[in-house]
Amino acid sequence: MAVEPFDTVDLIRAKRSGDALSTPEIDWLVDAYTRGYVEDPQMAALAMAIFLNGMERREIKDLTLAMIASGERMSFGSLGKTTVDKHSTGGVGDKITLPLAPLVASFGVAVPQLSGRGLGHTGGTLDKLESIPGWQASISNDRMMQVLSEVGAVICAAGSGLAPADKKLYALRDITGTVECIPLIASSIMSKKIAEGTGALVLDVKFGSGAFMPTYEASKELAQTMVDLGNDAGVATSALLTDMEVPLGLTIGNALEVRESVEVLAGGGPSDVVALTVSLAEEMLRLAGLPDADPAAALADGRAMDTWRRMIAAQGGDPAADLPVAREQHVVTAAESGVLVQQDALPFGIAAWRLGAGRARAQDPVQAGAGIELHVKPGDTVTAGQPLWTLHTDEPARFDRALESLEGAWAIGSTAPERGPIVRERITG
Amino acid sequence: MAVEPFDTVDLIRAKRSGDALSTPEIDWLVDAYTRGYVEDPQMAALAMAIFLNGMERREIKDLTLAMIASGERMSFGSLGKTTVDKHSTGGVGDKITLPLAPLVASFGVAVPQLSGRGLGHTGGTLDKLESIPGWQASISNDRMMQVLSEVGAVICAAGSGLAPADKKLYALRDITGTVECIPLIASSIMSKKIAEGTGALVLDVKFGSGAFMPTYEASKELAQTMVDLGNDAGVATSALLTDMEVPLGLTIGNALEVRESVEVLAGGGPSDVVALTVSLAEEMLRLAGLPDADPAAALADGRAMDTWRRMIAAQGGDPAADLPVAREQHVVTAAESGVLVQQDALPFGIAAWRLGAGRARAQDPVQAGAGIELHVKPGDTVTAGQPLWTLHTDEPARFDRALESLEGAWAIGSTAPERGPIVRERITG
Repeated sequence: MAVEPFDTVDLIRAKRSGDALSTPEIDWLVDAYTRGYVEDPQMAALAMAIFLNGMERREIKDLTLAMIASGERMSFGSLGKTTVDKHSTGGVGDKITLPLAPLVASFGVAVPQLSGRGLGHTGGTLDKLESIPGWQASISNDRMMQVLSEVGAVICAAGSGLAPADKKLYALRDITGTVECIPLIASSIMSKKIAEGTGALVLDVKFGSGAFMPTYEASKELAQTMVDLGNDAGVATSALLTDMEVPLGLTIGNALEVRESVEVLAGGGPSDVVALTVSLAEEMLRLAGLPDADPAAALADGRAMDTWRRMIAAQGGDPAADLPVAREQHVVTAAESGVLVQQDALPFGIAAWRLGAGRARAQDPVQAGAGIELHVKPGDTVTAGQPLWTLHTDEPARFDRALESLEGAWAIGSTAPERGPIVRERITG
Repeated sequence: MAVEPFDTVDLIRAKRSGDALSTPEIDWLVDAYTRGYVEDPQMAALAMAIFLNGMERREIKDLTLAMIASGERMSFGSLGKTTVDKHSTGGVGDKITLPLAPLVASFGVAVPQLSGRGLGHTGGTLDKLESIPGWQASISNDRMMQVLSEVGAVICAAGSGLAPADKKLYALRDITGTVECIPLIASSIMSKKIAEGTGALVLDVKFGSGAFMPTYEASKELAQTMVDLGNDAGVATSALLTDMEVPLGLTIGNALEVRESVEVLAGGGPSDVVALTVSLAEEMLRLAGLPDADPAAALADGRAMDTWRRMIAAQGGDPAADLPVAREQHVVTAAESGVLVQQDALPFGIAAWRLGAGRARAQDPVQAGAGIELHVKPGDTVTAGQPLWTLHTDEPARFDRALESLEGAWAIGSTAPERGPIVRERITG
C-alpha cells in the first residue's frame, strides 16, 4: 500500500478551523475520496465544515479541477468550430435549452448540450425531449461529434465517466444537509461543464421563489463564483441572473413544454420565453465571437426551426409527429374577477411533479403528457368563471394532491403587480 | 417498516443553521443512529455542525440521556452504601485512581471505578493494574457488587452494554475531526459515567500542555459543562481543575506507576501525586456526606493500604508480588548545571508510549515494565552529569524514537519557574 501524503483528519481539522486547504491537499482529498481511502463520513464532516466556513476562490478552483481530473475529459477541438454551452440552475417551466441550442447553432456555432433528467419539482431537458416519438437521449461520442459537425446542435445524456468524484460527493451532500453551499454547488456544476470540453459557457442563474438559492444576493454570489471559476479554468464564462418568481412561459410538463418550444422556434410563443431565449442566445454568440448576430431574426425567418428539425431527426425523433397528450384534464376556473397578482413557481412546479411530469427517485418513470397549462400570468385580467389553468395527467387520482399544492400559490387582486425584466443582471469575470 | 417521525436531513439543516434540536428530535436521532437508520455520514455532518455551532445546556443533557437510554444502566442501590466515582480527562503519569479508590473506600464509601485501557500518549488504568501478577480487569457484575460490598473499592473494565450510541459516535468522531468539541466530549464522558450508576461524581479536569483541551478556559468550560450535566441528570457532581503542564509524579508507564501508587498508599510518594490524591479524596468524601473526613491520615496510618491490598487480591492480584521490570534501561544525564525550568507533559507521554507503555491501536499489547522514571522535576537543582530520567523498555530499538520525542521537551536554566498549586480551581453546579 502506498503511503498517503496527508492525514484526512488533519485536513478536516484545518477546514474546521477556517483555514484554506492547499492545492496538493485538495488534489489528494478528491483523489483519495474517489478511490475510497477517504471515507464517506470524513467527506461529510468536511462538507459541513466547508458549508459553515466557506472556501477561497483558489480552493474552489482547485476542487473543481480535481473533480474534473477524477474522470474523463471531452474535447471538441477536432470539430474546427467554436463551441458554446449553456447551463441553467433549474426552474419551473424552464424549457429554454430546447429552442436555444438550435437557435445558436443556426449561426454556425457548435452547441453540445449534455443534459440530465429531472428530479423533484425541476423538470429535466432529456425527459422533455423523450416525449417526442422516436427520440433517443443516449448516443455514442462519435455520433455526437458527427451531429455537432453536420447539424451544429446536440442535446444528449452526459457520459457517466465525467467527474465521478462530483457524482459521489453530490450523492453524499444530498443525504447530509450540505447541498445549499455555494463553493460546493459551483464546483459541482462547473466540474461537469468544464469536463464536457466546451470553449465558452453561459450560465442562467435563477432567482426567486422557484430558484435553488434562497435570495437574490445568494443567486448573484453563486453566479459570480461560477463565472470566476470558469474564467480561472480557461473557459470564457458569463452569467445572466433571471427571474424565477413565476413559472417560465405558459406550460410546465414534458410534451407541453416541447409544444411551447416549437411555438418559439416558429416565431411565436410566450414573451418571457422568447425574451430569455434571445438574451441567452445573444450572450452565447457574444462569447463565440459573434456580438452582432441577431437571434430574434433567426427565430422569425425559420433558420432556428430548420436546425431544430435536423437536430431532433439526428437522434431518431420525428419532429412532425403529434406529441403525447395526457388522458385526463382538470380545469381550474376563477371564482372572482380581477387581476392575477401572484403565481409562485415552486408550488406550480410541485403540482406538475405530482401530476406525473416529474419523479421522486432517479429510477421512476415520468408521464410525457402530464403537467399544467397556464392560461393567465401575473398582470393578466381575469373574469369570474374563466379558465386559469388546466391540469393534465394520465391518472386522475393525482389531481387532488396537485390541487393541494396550488392552494395559496396564486391570488387574484385589484392592481397589476410590478414586474422587472426577466433578465435582471449580467455577470462577467 | 415503521414510519420515522423526523427527517434526518431536516435535523442536520436545523443544527447547521444554529437552531437548537428539541428533546424528541435528539431522542429520535440517537435511537435511529444506534439502529442504523441514521447513517454514519449523516451523523458525521451533524457532529461537525455541532462542533461549529454548539449546543445549548438542555440539548447536551438530552443527548447524554439519550445515549444512556441506548444501552444498559447499572444500579448500586442494593449495596446500601453511598457510591462515589471519579473521572479524569487523562494526563501523563496520571495514576491517581490507583491510590484514590482504596483511600476513599477506607471511609466506608463504595467506589466503583469502571475504567478503560490507554490509547496514544495517555495511559490506561487497567493497563497499569494488569502489570500486577495475577490481576484480572474483567469481572462479572455479581462479583463487582460483592467486592464493593466487602472491600468497598473496585477498579474493573466497563461492561460493553453501557451507552452503545456513545461508543459508535466516539469511533465516528475520531475519524471525522470532531473530537475536541465540548458538548460532544461532555455528553460522551457523562453518558458512560451516569450509566454506570454512581450516586456522586468528582471530575479531575486537566489543563496544560499534556491535557486534552488546548487552553485553561476550554478546560474550565468543559468542567462546568460536565458539572452542570451531572447535576441536571441527578448525579451530585463537582470538578477540580488540575495542572497537567508537567507529568504527574516521577513515573510514566504501567508497572512504574503502580510502584509509585503503592509508595503513596504507604504514606510516601511524590508531593504532587499526594496532594492531588488527597484533594480528590476530600472532594469525593464531601459529596458522599463526609466533609470532615481526613484522607491524609488514612494514607499515613495504613487504612488506605489495607483496602488496596484487599482490592487487588479480590481480582486475583498478588499485592506483595514483585512488579515487572523492563529488560533495558537508558539514562539521560544533564550536560550542564542549573535548575530544571521545563518538562512538557505531552512529549514525555509520547516518549513513554514509544517505549512500549502505550498502544497506537486498541488491539495492540503494552509492555508492563516500559516507561520513564523522572529523577528531577521543574524547580529542582541539577548538576552536570547527574541522571535526569531513566527510560525503560524491553526493546532497545525503541530508545531512539523516544529520545526524539524528548528533544526540546525540557530545559535547564538559571531561575526556578513559578508554579501554582496542582489543584487550581474547584467547579460546582
